[in-house]
Amino acid sequence: MYTLGEVAQRLGLRFTGDASRRLRGLASLATAGPDQLSFLSSAAYLPQLAATGAGAVILDRAHAARCPCDYLEAEDPYLAFARATALFAGRPAPTPGVHEAASVAASARVAATASIGPCAVVEEGAVIGARSRVEAGAVICRGVQLGEDCIVQPNAVLGAAGFGYARDGQDWVAIHSLGGLVVGDRVAIGAGTTIDRGTLDDTVIADGVIIDDQVHIGHNCRIGANTAIAGCTGIAGSTVIGANCTLAGGVGVVGHLEICDNVHVTAMTLVTHSIAEPGSYSSGTPVTDTGLWRRNAVRFKQLDAMQQRLRALEHNDDREPDTT
Amino acid sequence: MYTLGEVAQRLGLRFTGDASRRLRGLASLATAGPDQLSFLSSAAYLPQLAATGAGAVILDRAHAARCPCDYLEAEDPYLAFARATALFAGRPAPTPGVHEAASVAASARVAATASIGPCAVVEEGAVIGARSRVEAGAVICRGVQLGEDCIVQPNAVLGAAGFGYARDGQDWVAIHSLGGLVVGDRVAIGAGTTIDRGTLDDTVIADGVIIDDQVHIGHNCRIGANTAIAGCTGIAGSTVIGANCTLAGGVGVVGHLEICDNVHVTAMTLVTHSIAEPGSYSSGTPVTDTGLWRRNAVRFKQLDAMQQRLRALEHNDDREPDTT
Amino acid sequence: MYTLGEVAQRLGLRFTGDASRRLRGLASLATAGPDQLSFLSSAAYLPQLAATGAGAVILDRAHAARCPCDYLEAEDPYLAFARATALFAGRPAPTPGVHEAASVAASARVAATASIGPCAVVEEGAVIGARSRVEAGAVICRGVQLGEDCIVQPNAVLGAAGFGYARDGQDWVAIHSLGGLVVGDRVAIGAGTTIDRGTLDDTVIADGVIIDDQVHIGHNCRIGANTAIAGCTGIAGSTVIGANCTLAGGVGVVGHLEICDNVHVTAMTLVTHSIAEPGSYSSGTPVTDTGLWRRNAVRFKQLDAMQQRLRALEHNDDREPDTT
Repeated sequence: MYTLGEVAQRLGLRFTGDASRRLRGLASLATAGPDQLSFLSSAAYLPQLAATGAGAVILDRAHAARCPCDYLEAEDPYLAFARATALFAGRPAPTPGVHEAASVAASARVAATASIGPCAVVEEGAVIGARSRVEAGAVICRGVQLGEDCIVQPNAVLGAAGFGYARDGQDWVAIHSLGGLVVGDRVAIGAGTTIDRGTLDDTVIADGVIIDDQVHIGHNCRIGANTAIAGCTGIAGSTVIGANCTLAGGVGVVGHLEICDNVHVTAMTLVTHSIAEPGSYSSGTPVTDTGLWRRNAVRFKQLDAMQQRLRALEHNDDREPDTT
Repeated sequence: MYTLGEVAQRLGLRFTGDASRRLRGLASLATAGPDQLSFLSSAAYLPQLAATGAGAVILDRAHAARCPCDYLEAEDPYLAFARATALFAGRPAPTPGVHEAASVAASARVAATASIGPCAVVEEGAVIGARSRVEAGAVICRGVQLGEDCIVQPNAVLGAAGFGYARDGQDWVAIHSLGGLVVGDRVAIGAGTTIDRGTLDDTVIADGVIIDDQVHIGHNCRIGANTAIAGCTGIAGSTVIGANCTLAGGVGVVGHLEICDNVHVTAMTLVTHSIAEPGSYSSGTPVTDTGLWRRNAVRFKQLDAMQQRLRALEHNDDREPDTT
Repeated sequence: MYTLGEVAQRLGLRFTGDASRRLRGLASLATAGPDQLSFLSSAAYLPQLAATGAGAVILDRAHAARCPCDYLEAEDPYLAFARATALFAGRPAPTPGVHEAASVAASARVAATASIGPCAVVEEGAVIGARSRVEAGAVICRGVQLGEDCIVQPNAVLGAAGFGYARDGQDWVAIHSLGGLVVGDRVAIGAGTTIDRGTLDDTVIADGVIIDDQVHIGHNCRIGANTAIAGCTGIAGSTVIGANCTLAGGVGVVGHLEICDNVHVTAMTLVTHSIAEPGSYSSGTPVTDTGLWRRNAVRFKQLDAMQQRLRALEHNDDREPDTT
């Protein structure tokens, strides 16, 4: 519970209205009541602003005149809203320390301000930086270095052996992972995500990278600063991804590629070659009803043949002037 | 071990044959022996029925005359078979209670008839309903509400923080998940599946939903009653899916969509827009040998150009009458 | 730390150079120093060989003349390198035995030479073969049989119930998994991977299979010897895959199929029908920039119509000879 004045002060925003108004939480424009704070992040919601029952709204100064209640002015209302969620999270960060049901190897180094959740495992020689949180059931394998202010969500696995094998006739001979995994500061790693250790050198996740649930990052990969990777994406071994990239959900990236900075990849795209130009990249086909899809999909198998038929027609067409 | 008469009585089916015949288990028509029960779920298996060595068979009355052994008549033999698997499962439900290697927070409320497996974690304020099973290694995060008669398979994670961020220059500022996760009754959740909590409101999984292994459901999603979601499917945040839908394996659904009731999505389809009409939906291309695929795939990059060439030819074709 | 002579002896290779040269580890040609061993696995790296600072290099005899330092001759340098990683792994195999933070049921049988990691769970009646490693947080469900020399990486789940249901009106009735899961010898299973138990018979993973992280294998599947399955692949229930197959990352295989031996499936392909011919198989479309992709993707919805327009043009074209 904060007053409007307190919220304004903590978020560093100017406000207009009753400084002593009590705000107990956050809600959307459509559902907020008089003791709740809301936000307008896009002009598309202006009709909802007009009708809102919120006690106060975070908005861009340009929309202030249309606000029916108290408001806070923010240059970027969505960013201010994000900061407000931290304010209203209402619970302290988890108590630093190792939960009694966690398993931490004697040779691991866990910062005094870090927290290790129940049934989490920190193996020999691993390092957990200041204020980092290893949540329930997460596994930090031997020697992994996790920076400061990181969050590793439940059941994520950092530093398992990579999927590297040489063939001996029909048998597979494992290539042992002699490298490690180094994770920078302010990295978020989602539930059930797996990041493998390197073969000779380290797998590296740079500062500020954010990774959703059930992402897989193979051995030897390097992910650049502030890159965002959405759920269910898989990145094969030895691929290097630049800074400030965004990979949408379900993306696949094959191994041994280089993706430059500022690349966006749309959902469920398979990236099969290196990308040297910033921009947005896609593969796949549009969703339609299954009947139409089936009729079109069968033609995909004839595409090259269609192209040749097209060329033959063009050839005939071109010759016509000669024959008349 | 049951007699044929006991099976008939427990499944509520009429039988023809020796009531005292002992049946020790279930097997397919092709492999069943005289002390095993089998089933005929489709006329396609009639040849196997003729040759079966089973002691008894569950079948539709229409096929009774062709059965070489004792039988039980069922309107829906596959459904009766499903019920028979429960009968022959042969082991009691797990003993209610909290395994000594589980970690349950003091403020969590676990029904006396629920069971919490080894190395499972139930965090502060979570609620586990009557007869629900939280299996080994599963994590039920703070405040999550799990209904009655649910099964949460090993290493699933319910209620981790959502993947929501605002950008502050190049840095990401986390939007804290102030909402929770509410799971209805009779919900099955597969091994390694992750369902995130909501941002302001709750993520909601309705009664009777069944979810396979390694499914990811993002923050704020709502999944309607009796919807089935197969393995490796990912649903991005704030998407609402109706009741009685079936999502096949590996499906992707982007965020902020609405899918109506009774929608079927085929395997590995990416759903990029809301769906307001019940029916079946697909995307992707058919699998072929890689050589043929490559020749066709390269043409996909020229599809729009091909369409223009086609239009040019049609134009010439149309003009011809005028020029002759 | 080994001498060159010791490395040669342990890997069974001929060497040329200083037998007493001390080698403390492995590195790539580009980064290796005089106390490191490197390898040349492809002629593409010959320029790096010329400039390497390595103390010794594993290479094919054919390239020996171009090596600026000591060398070891191997018929298959990459395979010899794999064996060298085991040599230089530098740490003993994990101490056999059950970690004090593991949970092993009284009725489970764990070989004396096997190791069970922290927070791993071995349920009733499961069998863990000699020298097998069940790593942190992995769950081996009741009755699962794991062979010898297997590795189960962190948070994998072996033997959860399959995703099988019959419909009773709108409700789902679970088909209980009465079968088990049998895993052969020398099988590697990646972090977060899930393999479900069978319905009536067992799910079977043959000897020498290698499986990457976050793979899902459904109930009743059988995977043939030495097949390799890369990360994020999902195989639906009751599918049978032959020996020596390779499934690249993110592949989907629908249920009830049969794939013969020696099939390769490229990344993110969806296999929708059985495959009876060895070879390579693919689906999907190539990645391009999103603008071009969008223009082409919209035409995919018109492919069948384009084919008909093409046929109409051809028809007109064909008739022309008749009309002149």
